[in-house]
Amino acid sequence: MVSKGKELSSFLLSFFPNSQKIYLKGDNPGVNVPFRKIKLSPNSGTRTSEPSYFYSYDTSGPYTDPSSGVEIGKGLFPLRAQWIQQRGDCEFYEGRILQMKEKGRLPDAQKELAFKNGQLGLFNRMPLRAKAGRRVSQMHYAKKGIVTPEMEFVAIRENLGKKDCSLRRGEGFLYSQHGGCSWGASIPEEITPEFVRREVAAGRAIIPANINHPELEPMIIGRNFRVKINANIGNSAISSSMSEEVAKLLWAILWGADTVMDLSTGKNIPQIRELIIRSSPVPIGTVPIYEALEKVGGVPEELSWEIYRDTLIEQAEQGVDYFTIHAGVLLRYIPYTVNRLCGIVSRGGSIMAKWCLAHHQENFLYTHFDEICEILSAYDVSISLGDGLRPGAIADANDKAQLSELYTLGELTKKAWEHDVQVMIEGPGHIPMQLIKENMDLELRHCFEAPFYTLGPLTTDIAPGYDHITSAIGAAMIGWFGCSMLCYVTPKEHLGLPNLDDVKTGVIAYKIAAHAADLAKGFPGAQLHDNFLSDARFHFRWEDQFNLSLDPVTARSFHDENLPQPAAKTA
Amino acid sequence: MVSKGKELSSFLLSFFPNSQKIYLKGDNPGVNVPFRKIKLSPNSGTRTSEPSYFYSYDTSGPYTDPSSGVEIGKGLFPLRAQWIQQRGDCEFYEGRILQMKEKGRLPDAQKELAFKNGQLGLFNRMPLRAKAGRRVSQMHYAKKGIVTPEMEFVAIRENLGKKDCSLRRGEGFLYSQHGGCSWGASIPEEITPEFVRREVAAGRAIIPANINHPELEPMIIGRNFRVKINANIGNSAISSSMSEEVAKLLWAILWGADTVMDLSTGKNIPQIRELIIRSSPVPIGTVPIYEALEKVGGVPEELSWEIYRDTLIEQAEQGVDYFTIHAGVLLRYIPYTVNRLCGIVSRGGSIMAKWCLAHHQENFLYTHFDEICEILSAYDVSISLGDGLRPGAIADANDKAQLSELYTLGELTKKAWEHDVQVMIEGPGHIPMQLIKENMDLELRHCFEAPFYTLGPLTTDIAPGYDHITSAIGAAMIGWFGCSMLCYVTPKEHLGLPNLDDVKTGVIAYKIAAHAADLAKGFPGAQLHDNFLSDARFHFRWEDQFNLSLDPVTARSFHDENLPQPAAKTA
Repeated sequence: MVSKGKELSSFLLSFFPNSQKIYLKGDNPGVNVPFRKIKLSPNSGTRTSEPSYFYSYDTSGPYTDPSSGVEIGKGLFPLRAQWIQQRGDCEFYEGRILQMKEKGRLPDAQKELAFKNGQLGLFNRMPLRAKAGRRVSQMHYAKKGIVTPEMEFVAIRENLGKKDCSLRRGEGFLYSQHGGCSWGASIPEEITPEFVRREVAAGRAIIPANINHPELEPMIIGRNFRVKINANIGNSAISSSMSEEVAKLLWAILWGADTVMDLSTGKNIPQIRELIIRSSPVPIGTVPIYEALEKVGGVPEELSWEIYRDTLIEQAEQGVDYFTIHAGVLLRYIPYTVNRLCGIVSRGGSIMAKWCLAHHQENFLYTHFDEICEILSAYDVSISLGDGLRPGAIADANDKAQLSELYTLGELTKKAWEHDVQVMIEGPGHIPMQLIKENMDLELRHCFEAPFYTLGPLTTDIAPGYDHITSAIGAAMIGWFGCSMLCYVTPKEHLGLPNLDDVKTGVIAYKIAAHAADLAKGFPGAQLHDNFLSDARFHFRWEDQFNLSLDPVTARSFHDENLPQPAAKTA
Repeated sequence: MVSKGKELSSFLLSFFPNSQKIYLKGDNPGVNVPFRKIKLSPNSGTRTSEPSYFYSYDTSGPYTDPSSGVEIGKGLFPLRAQWIQQRGDCEFYEGRILQMKEKGRLPDAQKELAFKNGQLGLFNRMPLRAKAGRRVSQMHYAKKGIVTPEMEFVAIRENLGKKDCSLRRGEGFLYSQHGGCSWGASIPEEITPEFVRREVAAGRAIIPANINHPELEPMIIGRNFRVKINANIGNSAISSSMSEEVAKLLWAILWGADTVMDLSTGKNIPQIRELIIRSSPVPIGTVPIYEALEKVGGVPEELSWEIYRDTLIEQAEQGVDYFTIHAGVLLRYIPYTVNRLCGIVSRGGSIMAKWCLAHHQENFLYTHFDEICEILSAYDVSISLGDGLRPGAIADANDKAQLSELYTLGELTKKAWEHDVQVMIEGPGHIPMQLIKENMDLELRHCFEAPFYTLGPLTTDIAPGYDHITSAIGAAMIGWFGCSMLCYVTPKEHLGLPNLDDVKTGVIAYKIAAHAADLAKGFPGAQLHDNFLSDARFHFRWEDQFNLSLDPVTARSFHDENLPQPAAKTA
């Protein structure tokens, strides 16, 4: 990959011909909401002589804006900094992330190199946290009736505009849409900042936005908004470097990932994460127990609340936007997994189960849950309540272990909300189609409509190498039924770590699932994209068909395999 | 591809390590039902010290049997010949397919070459047809209470065995399965030949099996049986040769296609078809209007009933097992398509619409439907009633044009059944998820539970290049809801003709959809495959996991990208 500003954005934009970044301004200073504007051929769409445009939600951040001057490794502009400061409820302090460097946790040679490259100079920033007795979460503000700039940002983003400036309204059949079937979701025709506030206050949606991640372009996860997708990246003991992981981040958001989880388990976890957060316009999630485990040499029994707590604080100071926390893996549920075909497959779940059994004590994430919430509410880190007992095989779907944990996640949701901590609930896994809806319905009921965030689910176990497809089927369905965010599965699932190709394939399979779900729910304006593309297709406007597609370059290359002549693209 | 018997089967079997072809004998002479037997590691599955096995439905025909001695281009053994002869209700005659050769429709140079290669010597076979006044369809026998060898064959095939010899029964958790949700399908725990007969008699299932395609290994298409998939092949004016199309046939059935449609529109249509039928162990479908159109120089207005009728007879004599016939595109429905986003996208539908409008006459396929049925019942060609007005865009889903045609297909179904002609109903197309079930429900009601056979449906229009995924989502869902056969969509859909890679990708995406549907319906034994694979996965028996997967070679190669060492496959 190229690393200089303009060259980088030209390179990335080359995957989306005729596309251009535009921004819509909000009422709050600094609210500039990005969209991708796709220029169509003259005489298309609007059927006038003017060229027409199609606008879409854009997750790729400043990297696709040639005027942003962004460079890899230098970090992004902290667009939220002034909003956070102006609230006057937090303060800088000498955080653990500075101590980390002082303690020499970063190998010397690397430190030197990193500083020379200007990458880890970012480590010198001071972390922010809430002033004593204050809470700084979006849920806290929402409950107080405050509409934050973040809320205005996501409203314009979801809505593709505001009352006086809509990018999705127009005249004629191209703008028509089937009625949806929303299974109880309540999606308004226009998403306003006030609607966003109400949803966040009610816990039905979250805006993951750590005050230490000011570079973030706010986004929202909830049943009454567009279905979102997450891409997992991260190194492991056996492969991948820091720059590879940043390349995966850029690649994932270019193709449409709404959030990215850094699941690194190899060397230099904090350094990789720092670089990822400073480089990321999308929320970053982590599973802190992975790093805690590295700190105790990979032996689950040696974990302790103190080590975990410190890890939480260090990651919160860096700016992680949501933590997966497996607090629902209770000691008494573990025996339920004994007769399973595949036991416990969640890495976090299995770590906590080992700890519980070794100490014969209750999961410390459960017993210390209030303290966890206190820490998180001081930074606005959202909780993604992990499903440590999720089924790892069709045979184990919807069993007692899985559902018992789900009910406990509901109990923890209430508790987190008392601390104004934003919550989502993680879900399975491997589920045959006839059992998918039960998952969604139980989650809504027992977790009080907190956003559901599922891995797939995979609808069959028989196709390793194609689990992006086995799971896109389940993901589309559960998205339709009300799931708010779909965690992608790549073709390498069960087999190895995804490379850049796998990341792209996984993201696109999940963009398809999420969009199919938006269509089925009847999300306002969702069908426009289908209509514009089909109109181009019907009128043999090949270039427009390519440019409107999720992956223009692939669509074009498939076409050109048979018919490479330019004339074949006009008739 | 290799072309000699043993080398060919070794080559094909190399894609399925540890697999072996086995046969189960039926009570009728010559009923030898093929299965794939996969040998697992010792101490697996059965948890005894013996090696255990997994058995699966096998569509690949004699090509994966090293003892069959089959060679490409030489044709397959006519396993049904004695069954057909023994019924004593049909006779050989001097058919049109002989005249074709005499009339010199085959270019001389090619004829010479073909005869030298022994390929088109097959043209010398005499066609069979029913004796005057007799009907020879499986439906005819079924209504008479006769259980044919074909019915016994499919019963053993669907059931993976018989009462005294089941390949899917065993003890323990590995043999357990979730309850399904069958949406009104009635699938018995054991599929018997008598059950097959009843389903065929009622029109709820078809066994496409032209008496001129004795090489066929019988299979069944119906809601109370395994969900099937079809792969389209065929040359076009711009690409592909005869041997390429046969390679696609072999490739499609190796990966699991249950039927194959030859949609050739280029040169040498009859020759390609002859070679495909003689080489095919699966039913072959065609769209006869394509060949009829070639006969009139590609001008729809010049089509006539007589030209079409002759085409039907020629293809029936060759052994085509089912015809797509667009008899429901009525003159009065055509105006309903005017305000669509994408008009008429079915090639057959658009040909017939042009003819109707040019002549301002009713569709001759509709007005001559009784004569069509008389021809078909003399050969046992099944009808696949085409959906010429299917939607080609999400915006056009479930509209008046589509549904009006569907109701007419129901009327035609009744008529075909009066002639004992087996019928299935083709369905869309492009349908958002919330409108899929309505398609299935309307089809069942208005077409009297005749098997539904859908193309996808694609659940969004925005991902050209990935329509195997947009459509696998819809295919899995409609399969679950009751669709009997899913016509695959390859990544090249809308963009170009599929090559061998695309055929494989399309077939595997659809095997996933069909199996996910079988699981969700609760088809007896379906979950065994998932259970066996997940058991291998949980116990790190990597070789078994690969060998049990839909695509062992890909699964293995993905694994080996990260961990190529042999030791990494045992722990």
